[in-house]
Amino acid sequence: MKPSIPQGTRDFSPADVRRRQYILNTIKSVFEVYGFQPLETPSMENLNTLMGKYGEEGDRLIFKILNNGLHEKKDQAKLHEEWDKILSKPYSSTTVTERALRYDLTIPFARYVVMHQNDLAFPFKRYQMQPVWRADRPQRGRYREFWQCDADVVGSNSLLNEAELLCIYQDAFHRLNVPGIQVKINSRKVLAGLAECCGAAEQLTDITVAIDKLDKIGWDGVAKELTERGLEADKVNYIQNYLNISGSTEERLVAMETLLKDSATAQQGIAELRTTLKYMAQLQRGEWTSEVLVDFTLARGLNYYTGVIVEVGTTAVKMGSIGGGGRYDDLTGLFGLKGLSGVGVSFGIDRIYDVMTELNLFPENVDVTTRILFVNIEPEAETTILSYLSRLRGQGISAELYSDAAKFDKQMKYADKRQIPYVGIVGSTELAQKVINLKNMTTGEQQQLSIEQLSEHLV
Amino acid sequence: MKPSIPQGTRDFSPADVRRRQYILNTIKSVFEVYGFQPLETPSMENLNTLMGKYGEEGDRLIFKILNNGLHEKKDQAKLHEEWDKILSKPYSSTTVTERALRYDLTIPFARYVVMHQNDLAFPFKRYQMQPVWRADRPQRGRYREFWQCDADVVGSNSLLNEAELLCIYQDAFHRLNVPGIQVKINSRKVLAGLAECCGAAEQLTDITVAIDKLDKIGWDGVAKELTERGLEADKVNYIQNYLNISGSTEERLVAMETLLKDSATAQQGIAELRTTLKYMAQLQRGEWTSEVLVDFTLARGLNYYTGVIVEVGTTAVKMGSIGGGGRYDDLTGLFGLKGLSGVGVSFGIDRIYDVMTELNLFPENVDVTTRILFVNIEPEAETTILSYLSRLRGQGISAELYSDAAKFDKQMKYADKRQIPYVGIVGSTELAQKVINLKNMTTGEQQQLSIEQLSEHLV
Repeated sequence: MKPSIPQGTRDFSPADVRRRQYILNTIKSVFEVYGFQPLETPSMENLNTLMGKYGEEGDRLIFKILNNGLHEKKDQAKLHEEWDKILSKPYSSTTVTERALRYDLTIPFARYVVMHQNDLAFPFKRYQMQPVWRADRPQRGRYREFWQCDADVVGSNSLLNEAELLCIYQDAFHRLNVPGIQVKINSRKVLAGLAECCGAAEQLTDITVAIDKLDKIGWDGVAKELTERGLEADKVNYIQNYLNISGSTEERLVAMETLLKDSATAQQGIAELRTTLKYMAQLQRGEWTSEVLVDFTLARGLNYYTGVIVEVGTTAVKMGSIGGGGRYDDLTGLFGLKGLSGVGVSFGIDRIYDVMTELNLFPENVDVTTRILFVNIEPEAETTILSYLSRLRGQGISAELYSDAAKFDKQMKYADKRQIPYVGIVGSTELAQKVINLKNMTTGEQQQLSIEQLSEHLV
Repeated sequence: MKPSIPQGTRDFSPADVRRRQYILNTIKSVFEVYGFQPLETPSMENLNTLMGKYGEEGDRLIFKILNNGLHEKKDQAKLHEEWDKILSKPYSSTTVTERALRYDLTIPFARYVVMHQNDLAFPFKRYQMQPVWRADRPQRGRYREFWQCDADVVGSNSLLNEAELLCIYQDAFHRLNVPGIQVKINSRKVLAGLAECCGAAEQLTDITVAIDKLDKIGWDGVAKELTERGLEADKVNYIQNYLNISGSTEERLVAMETLLKDSATAQQGIAELRTTLKYMAQLQRGEWTSEVLVDFTLARGLNYYTGVIVEVGTTAVKMGSIGGGGRYDDLTGLFGLKGLSGVGVSFGIDRIYDVMTELNLFPENVDVTTRILFVNIEPEAETTILSYLSRLRGQGISAELYSDAAKFDKQMKYADKRQIPYVGIVGSTELAQKVINLKNMTTGEQQQLSIEQLSEHLV
């Protein structure tokens, strides 16, 4: 049997893990400095916690877990009936499956907040970095197991939260050294105002869904879709005027205030964008180079957003968005806790990894762990080398002795393959002189050092 | 609907995550300093990778994932037949389920090594810290989702590896400050020698399984079980002699050399224990206080061990073992790669967490993240405070402004609940004087500082 792994899943080699950890740790340190706290929820949720939260397509893509011990149950006739339910109306039998794998981090977060509402200090600012699972058809860049990395604040209506989360994007991508970052913002209230003003308030979702595709299908495609969704020509024209607004951020804000002057909702949305930008100006640091743009064509797919929305991309690589989020009202209402507003952002770890790989942005030493490998060529030197290891490790220097007395070449090859920067050679001569012959694997240079000199050299 | 999580799973609150991270990061830093590299494998494996590897009981406890899109399949009659297979002979239908959740980290590691055998630098030293899932009946300290934390070396027969892994236990528990640590070692070869010498070589597993229960059921229980498993009285007596050997480590080794003098296997096992101890003596550091003991009553449950075995506990708390491992030959043989020897150890994260909580061993600042909360009481001060936040965060100091202009008491309560050590107050007076009124939340002390003084104070 030739072993393999399920389609759409990945093994992460040591180099992969280190690079991913570099990204996750960098983002984590930013979350922490803004006062966000870590949360982890179980991989499995009760199926009824997840079902109905992600639309019909979502329900279909949730990985359900088969209940255990089915063959030991007495009433096998009942099990056949239950199986019929699974086959006719998908997944309605808790006898067959009552648990499922997490589909995102947002619903488990809402579920957690509701369960722990009496213990939490609100506003509750949490971050969460965990895998999620979706039974999507795997393709390049789309996996069945992938990581989400979210920060959310619930229990505060203040736009300070929006500003901080947007700064978190700027700060994190600055620390990760990703060039060409654009943080685009808009407000669902402006989109709602557009729907109002063009006389199609009840078709907000249709309008949002169509505008969301502008990047992919262009204006002609959007116009076609709007028409198909039943919008008359004058409404479609109105939307075109909306999408055509251009100029600097200030010019666009002013033009939009004029275009949507009849909608109080839109005016509120625009005012919120202004306040968010004002807060950001005060929170930003001079060294950040990313742009923050108001982009009224930004729509975001998810239905639950109600206020400011955001999407992040880079102009440096051809790649979809690498982050997104927004404000949502009443997410916890799904689980019975009404009136709690929240706002959150998400980092697309897999895409950020791809961008950083393509642009070669990982620090040079991200793969280095073991700093020195002692070769194993002189049995008499073993005791001495072990005491060296003990000393170096005590100083936090990662050090190894090749564990078998293999051929010298094989040991050097190992050091090379592992990208170990130094090799220490202690043969009978070095042993007698109490020195280590240190070879720099990059330059080929060799020098003789005492253990004291060596440990100073490597610290 | 009152939300809940599946039985045997846990939410980890911010405080839980930080404490668990403290343990995992400490152990990780030790793995790294000994030259081990991180690996991560998918949560899902193909069901046939896992089935048959953990015994019948294991097969039953593996969480299987229901295939998606079943209700969309055309041949529903076939699906009923397949369901019958699930109900009669458990889990034999890949039409119904072909994936399952990881049950441990060892089999996925073996699978990975076989798949990547041509790319890896051997000996391959990897560590892995990931959750695993078992459909066990949940009880105190036993979960359906729990973390394993393993380090293994494959591709080397050298006892240096055993010595290093045992030192990793000592080093890690030293860094975690856990008192009363005992690292107990034995060899499966000594147990094999015992089985030979008492004339029951083919009953090695029976003997091992019975001896493994000595702690729980005492000698009388073991004797009863050995008898039930078909061992005659003289053999049982021989085993009693074996288990009664006592004295210092050296005395026990000598006594065992004498008792099992007729078994070459046992003699080899004893010699290996001696060599391991010799290597350890050279690798250990003076500050480590843990004991390393040869304990011939140690057996370990798992069948695949073939050489040195180890178990770690603490005398400071009443608790089962908090770590264990040993050498296994040919684990990768399961996937077609023969002749690769390995040795590994595992840390029991959940139990270590419990021990450290019970003994109050977490560092005082493990829960602290946000160092200072500015209260939000003076709208005029907002701009100034945001610039303070920007400055402090730029220096890596975690700082927050309470996001809403809530009552002062509510904001102080938030700081208290979050265990934030300092509160910064900027009212109209402080604003005019360009100072911050800094309150130490532990001592209650207050002082007026400029932002320069404050940032020096908090660094």
